[in-house]
Amino acid sequence: MLSLFTDQIRVELKTGIDIVDISDRINRLIGRAGIESGSVHATVIGSTGSVTTIEYERGVIEDLKRAINRIAPPDIPYEHEKAWHDGNGHSHVQAAMIGPSIVLQIRDARLQIGTWQQVVIINHDNRPRERKIDISIIGEKSE
Amino acid sequence: MLSLFTDQIRVELKTGIDIVDISDRINRLIGRAGIESGSVHATVIGSTGSVTTIEYERGVIEDLKRAINRIAPPDIPYEHEKAWHDGNGHSHVQAAMIGPSIVLQIRDARLQIGTWQQVVIINHDNRPRERKIDISIIGEKSE
Amino acid sequence: MLSLFTDQIRVELKTGIDIVDISDRINRLIGRAGIESGSVHATVIGSTGSVTTIEYERGVIEDLKRAINRIAPPDIPYEHEKAWHDGNGHSHVQAAMIGPSIVLQIRDARLQIGTWQQVVIINHDNRPRERKIDISIIGEKSE
Repeated sequence: MLSLFTDQIRVELKTGIDIVDISDRINRLIGRAGIESGSVHATVIGSTGSVTTIEYERGVIEDLKRAINRIAPPDIPYEHEKAWHDGNGHSHVQAAMIGPSIVLQIRDARLQIGTWQQVVIINHDNRPRERKIDISIIGEKSE
Repeated sequence: MLSLFTDQIRVELKTGIDIVDISDRINRLIGRAGIESGSVHATVIGSTGSVTTIEYERGVIEDLKRAINRIAPPDIPYEHEKAWHDGNGHSHVQAAMIGPSIVLQIRDARLQIGTWQQVVIINHDNRPRERKIDISIIGEKSE
Repeated sequence: MLSLFTDQIRVELKTGIDIVDISDRINRLIGRAGIESGSVHATVIGSTGSVTTIEYERGVIEDLKRAINRIAPPDIPYEHEKAWHDGNGHSHVQAAMIGPSIVLQIRDARLQIGTWQQVVIINHDNRPRERKIDISIIGEKSE
C-alpha cells in the first residue's frame, strides 16, 4: 500500500550564486512521513533556482560556482536585458541548464546518498531569494 | 489511495534549437487525471530532445539557445559524424547534457511552477521533429 | 492499485570519463517487478557519478566526454584540491552539472526510450569506481 506525503521546504539564499545543503531537512521530512521505502521528488519553484547533489565542501562549492559562471557568464550581453533590464539573464540560463528537479531514494527510512554527497539548492539570481522547494514523498510505510 | 494516470504529449518542433512551452498542456492533463496532489513525471522520447523549465520570454529563450550552443557548438568536429554523416553530433551532446526528464509537483489540482517559470521541450536536432513526451501523473484524487 | 519495487544496480566503471549503457538492466528489473505501466526512478549514489540518456554509439560517446571536459576541464586549478589533493575537483563539478537522477516511463511492461536512445551511467572520477544506482519502480501490475 503506497502513501503520499507532501510538504514545502523554504530556504533563505544570498545573492547568487549561493548554494545550501538541504539533506538533513529532507531526512526530517522522510521521518515525519513515516516512509520506509520509496522516492523523494523535489522541484524548485521559480526560474532562477536549481537543485542537484555535490559534496558540500567549501572548495568544490566554489569550483561549481565558477563552472556555472563559465557556461552562462554574468558579464556578457543577454537578450533578456532588452526586455527587463534586471541584470539576471545569466541567472535564468544557468538555472535552466542545471535543472529544477531531482529524484532521490528512500531505503530503511533514510535518504540514500553517498557519504560525500549532499542535496543542494542553488540560487542563481542577482539578489537574495527565499527559495521554495515542493516535495512529494511516495512509498511504503513501515509495518 | 494513490492513482496513476498516463498519457503522451506530442509537439511539432522546428529545426533546433527550438523551444516550446508545454505548461498549459500539462495542466490540462492534470485536470483530466483528476489528481489533487502528487507528482508529474515527464520523459522526452528520443536522443535529440530535452526538457527543463525557464521563463518563456523571447529574450531569455534566445539566451538559453546561445548558452546551449556554447557547451556543444554546431560548428566544431564531432566523432559522431564519422559514423553517421548526419550533421547532428552537437544535437545528441546538447540533449544529453540538458537531460530528458523532469519531475513537477501538483497541489490543489494545479501544476506548481513560478509565475515566470514554464515547462519547456527543446528540439536540438538539425531538422524539424515531432517530439513525444511520455507523462505519468501519480497522486491522490480529490474526495 | 499501485505497487513499489526497489532494487540497486551496480556497475563497474573505468577511470573517468567512462560511460556505460544500463537500458537492458532496467528492462530486466521492470520484468521482475511485473509492472505494466508507471515510472522508473533512478539515482546514482556518490558525488562523482551521473545519469542521462544518449545514443550509445562510440563516436557520440566520445563527443559527450569532450563536451563534459569543456564545462569542467581536468587541467585547470580547483579549490577542492587545496583541501583534498585527490585530483578530482573536476569530477565533482561535472557530476553535479549533469545530475544524479532520472525519471523514465514504463508502458506495455517495457522501458519507453527511443530506438537510438539509451540510459547511461557516467563515472567522472579519476579512478575506477563501482557505481551504485538505487532504482524505484512505481506503477500498476498487469491483471
